[in-house]
Amino acid sequence: MEQQTINNIAEICHQQGIEKAIISPGSRNAPLTLAFARYPKIQCYSISDERSAAFISMGIAQADRKPVAIICTSGSAALNYAPAIAEAYFQEIPLVVITADRPPEWIDQWDGQTIRQENIYGKHVKKSFNIAVDLSHADAQWQTYRIINEAVLESKTGVKGPVHVNIPFREPFYPEKNENWQYDHDIKIIENIAGEKRLNENQINELQTALKEKEKIAFVLGQDNYSEEFLSTLDQTSQQLNIPIFADVISNGHSLKNAIHLPDSICMSMIKHSKAEEIPDLIISFGKSIISKNLKLFLRKNIKTQWHVRNHHAFISDPFQALSKQIEAEPISFLQHLNANFSAEFLKLWKDKNREAETKTNQFLSTQSFSEFSALNELLKKLPSNSHLHLANSLSVRYANFIGIKQDGVKIWANRGTSGIDGSTSTAVGHAVTEKNKNHFLITGDVAFFYDRNAFWHKYPYSNLKIILLNNQGGSIFRMIKGPNQQAELEEFFETEQRLDAKSLCSEFGIAHFSAHNSESFETIKEKFLKYPQSAVLEIKTDAKNNQQLFEDFKNKLIS
Amino acid sequence: MEQQTINNIAEICHQQGIEKAIISPGSRNAPLTLAFARYPKIQCYSISDERSAAFISMGIAQADRKPVAIICTSGSAALNYAPAIAEAYFQEIPLVVITADRPPEWIDQWDGQTIRQENIYGKHVKKSFNIAVDLSHADAQWQTYRIINEAVLESKTGVKGPVHVNIPFREPFYPEKNENWQYDHDIKIIENIAGEKRLNENQINELQTALKEKEKIAFVLGQDNYSEEFLSTLDQTSQQLNIPIFADVISNGHSLKNAIHLPDSICMSMIKHSKAEEIPDLIISFGKSIISKNLKLFLRKNIKTQWHVRNHHAFISDPFQALSKQIEAEPISFLQHLNANFSAEFLKLWKDKNREAETKTNQFLSTQSFSEFSALNELLKKLPSNSHLHLANSLSVRYANFIGIKQDGVKIWANRGTSGIDGSTSTAVGHAVTEKNKNHFLITGDVAFFYDRNAFWHKYPYSNLKIILLNNQGGSIFRMIKGPNQQAELEEFFETEQRLDAKSLCSEFGIAHFSAHNSESFETIKEKFLKYPQSAVLEIKTDAKNNQQLFEDFKNKLIS
Repeated sequence: MEQQTINNIAEICHQQGIEKAIISPGSRNAPLTLAFARYPKIQCYSISDERSAAFISMGIAQADRKPVAIICTSGSAALNYAPAIAEAYFQEIPLVVITADRPPEWIDQWDGQTIRQENIYGKHVKKSFNIAVDLSHADAQWQTYRIINEAVLESKTGVKGPVHVNIPFREPFYPEKNENWQYDHDIKIIENIAGEKRLNENQINELQTALKEKEKIAFVLGQDNYSEEFLSTLDQTSQQLNIPIFADVISNGHSLKNAIHLPDSICMSMIKHSKAEEIPDLIISFGKSIISKNLKLFLRKNIKTQWHVRNHHAFISDPFQALSKQIEAEPISFLQHLNANFSAEFLKLWKDKNREAETKTNQFLSTQSFSEFSALNELLKKLPSNSHLHLANSLSVRYANFIGIKQDGVKIWANRGTSGIDGSTSTAVGHAVTEKNKNHFLITGDVAFFYDRNAFWHKYPYSNLKIILLNNQGGSIFRMIKGPNQQAELEEFFETEQRLDAKSLCSEFGIAHFSAHNSESFETIKEKFLKYPQSAVLEIKTDAKNNQQLFEDFKNKLIS
Repeated sequence: MEQQTINNIAEICHQQGIEKAIISPGSRNAPLTLAFARYPKIQCYSISDERSAAFISMGIAQADRKPVAIICTSGSAALNYAPAIAEAYFQEIPLVVITADRPPEWIDQWDGQTIRQENIYGKHVKKSFNIAVDLSHADAQWQTYRIINEAVLESKTGVKGPVHVNIPFREPFYPEKNENWQYDHDIKIIENIAGEKRLNENQINELQTALKEKEKIAFVLGQDNYSEEFLSTLDQTSQQLNIPIFADVISNGHSLKNAIHLPDSICMSMIKHSKAEEIPDLIISFGKSIISKNLKLFLRKNIKTQWHVRNHHAFISDPFQALSKQIEAEPISFLQHLNANFSAEFLKLWKDKNREAETKTNQFLSTQSFSEFSALNELLKKLPSNSHLHLANSLSVRYANFIGIKQDGVKIWANRGTSGIDGSTSTAVGHAVTEKNKNHFLITGDVAFFYDRNAFWHKYPYSNLKIILLNNQGGSIFRMIKGPNQQAELEEFFETEQRLDAKSLCSEFGIAHFSAHNSESFETIKEKFLKYPQSAVLEIKTDAKNNQQLFEDFKNKLIS
């Protein structure tokens, strides 16, 4: 081990754009720990639970829009990163995952914390590299520096995502007491200069000709970390050309003028019966996943043609089974080439539907007695603008999607890459720790919340984070789904009834705890909670059976 | 999806020896959940956090010595199993890991909980299978049944370990309300009849001839789930032939007559200086890893020849860099062929050294003021016989190894397959839930304990489990190691100082909580804790700096 070479890894990481690193404690990764912790321009965090550390790093990378390094010791530590790495892969978050390893000669020799780490993340990293164990030869150093350059560049270029660098270390791991310590600032840096993808005249003409045959066009906005410039160009184009934008809650398109922000509610009744004038001739889509199941089913059933526009495509994704053109181009310039004019009636029809769904939803929820759905509706309407709203998976993100967000400036985040129950709190904490000047809200269910409770197990402050915890004592989404709710095993094996509340956990971590189980208690504390100057949990305790009934009633109201 | 075929998977699993399954809630795995939960002879547990569920299943499999099925939904759920699967792989615990998957046509289509699950566990499972998505063809059913037979057999045959079966499911997942529900008891079962490996006469003669040249032989007992029969044969052989048995704490050889149960302490002073009469001419080893670092170093430095005897070898493991014969044979029959007679002086020398180390240790620890090391010494001496002692990784298992266990019938467990910090509590909980009539004790540090706190997040009782929690507010093993303790980053990035105590957590999960921070409080409660009729935590709070000094003094005493 040559500490100087390891120090230069930190130097390259920084020069390539890494400003933050999360280190989980270990012995084998000590040379990396020292190299990064002593590097003055990389802010390092120390977090013990690697599962949580990796999800927290995602929140940091989302907030900063920059790659984050995560560094762990050898053995199963690396495997605890895996859930977040898969999420980062599909959510396209740039992470540089640096795992310390035993030297190859000690693999399978019954040595502690020794597993088979090469390619350990399988198909859920963009690339995986192994550094040589002996770095004394100049070529090995050249290879190491080249790899670190490539790893950071790869994480943030094209389709972003996690990249793995596995580094074996022989002992000793620690420098001598007075060892000279330095970083080579003139280390080898490989710059990547990527041109923008722009359509040529022929391609533009062809698309414009194809558009002339279309009368009714809709945009579909998938989840993505869009730039303000893109969203404002989309807004203008959609208004100029009479194009509705199907923008469910994870799309962050809710403040666009032509946003159809409740497509899931609208399409609920349209899956079985829809009229020709309601069906777009073409949808043009951006970004990644959408969450609205009814919208998906409506599109799959009805549309014939989809164009998908992104700068880079990781793979051909055809979620509506109608993809005909995958357009690799800078989306803003693509939008600027659209110059046809489409049906104003079609736009009006969808905007009317959206207003109607909104009215029905508000009418319904405002007349209900206390429930998690109606309480959440009230809270979401009061969210301060310019705040971040984090949605945990399962029921939380679905409730929010049915309620819809309207406030300008509220930005929505959800781990919809793999849609796991596992790391939403950690991701929100990472985001809150980073964007300190913003208010952050997390909506989560009890299963997601307790699953990821180690999100709080570190010393970094998140006083700007408030958590709305829907505690119905189990995974009550299963009670809402026809199928599990008709099985005798519902409570034991689907809901997995659990009796915890968050009070102990909040007191353990110094988080304020508010609790509401009926209208009176909710009315008393909701304002206090929203204005509370420190991190706080508002635990909304409701009965799963009542929630189920209310959700049934809601769906009936929508299709009435 | 054909529910009948899925039902028959449960039937085959049972007929091949699976009696217990852990199911984590999900929708995609619903057909498996129903098939297993309704099967009358498989006991099913429902546990939400897959990371913990998989470690709990290891404890069950250890206790039952039978394969356990773990079943989860698609997506990152499967990745949360990964740390325990690697541990099970190197610890050779039979697990049948059944992951539900989306059908292949929906992979990479931005659908929820969809990742790339084929071969997701890489090189840490013995085999990985994919079931066909369409099971309507008779050949697909034949293949499915054949695979399930192979998967369970593979998990428990030869070198045991985890096996992965990935099963894609198309909707619908749930049976109709009055659907006929059955299991085909006469389903295809493939029996595996494995002969025992026995050495032939030539092989025996050759070994016996080689042994005649040796004077000083030692057995080295690695970690394994040994049978009583093997241990008693080893005991007899070692006595008849004058062979000391290097049996550190994880070997479970402490009650053997010739056990050298403190080899780590003994070898501490022998690494630098050892005499010819102390060095074995040959070591014959059994099982897997040992934990004693000084013993490893002593053997690596001094011995020339090691024979390693196991029924099956997963790979060539040469931890002392002296392996010359890998003997594939039933260890009991191998032992019965040993008939030479070795040096009684050599045996006496090592037994004397062991007695001396024991005396020094007891003298030292009994004269110390309150510390985690001395408190642990007292508690371990009071462990009731016939109890199980679970040792978490890092400092806990090392303290226990220096103290040594003497009581007959105390059985010791530790996750030394990958030696991770991650799942020791869950494994102990799984074991306690299973062997209800035994007392279980877990020794753990605060990092390991809080890391794996979801071990308690389920409804299965573990009132027979007591936890000795060494809370020194951080990973204080780093303070004990020369290297990190000389770095400015010690507290922030190695120890990762943390301020939690276990009180809140215990109250949350209904576990009794005892706490000791000095001799007086320790004396008052230790008996009460040991006799407490319900699950309890005894939190021993000490200062990391004092512990460090005491451990230094201890090492000096040993080499004095």
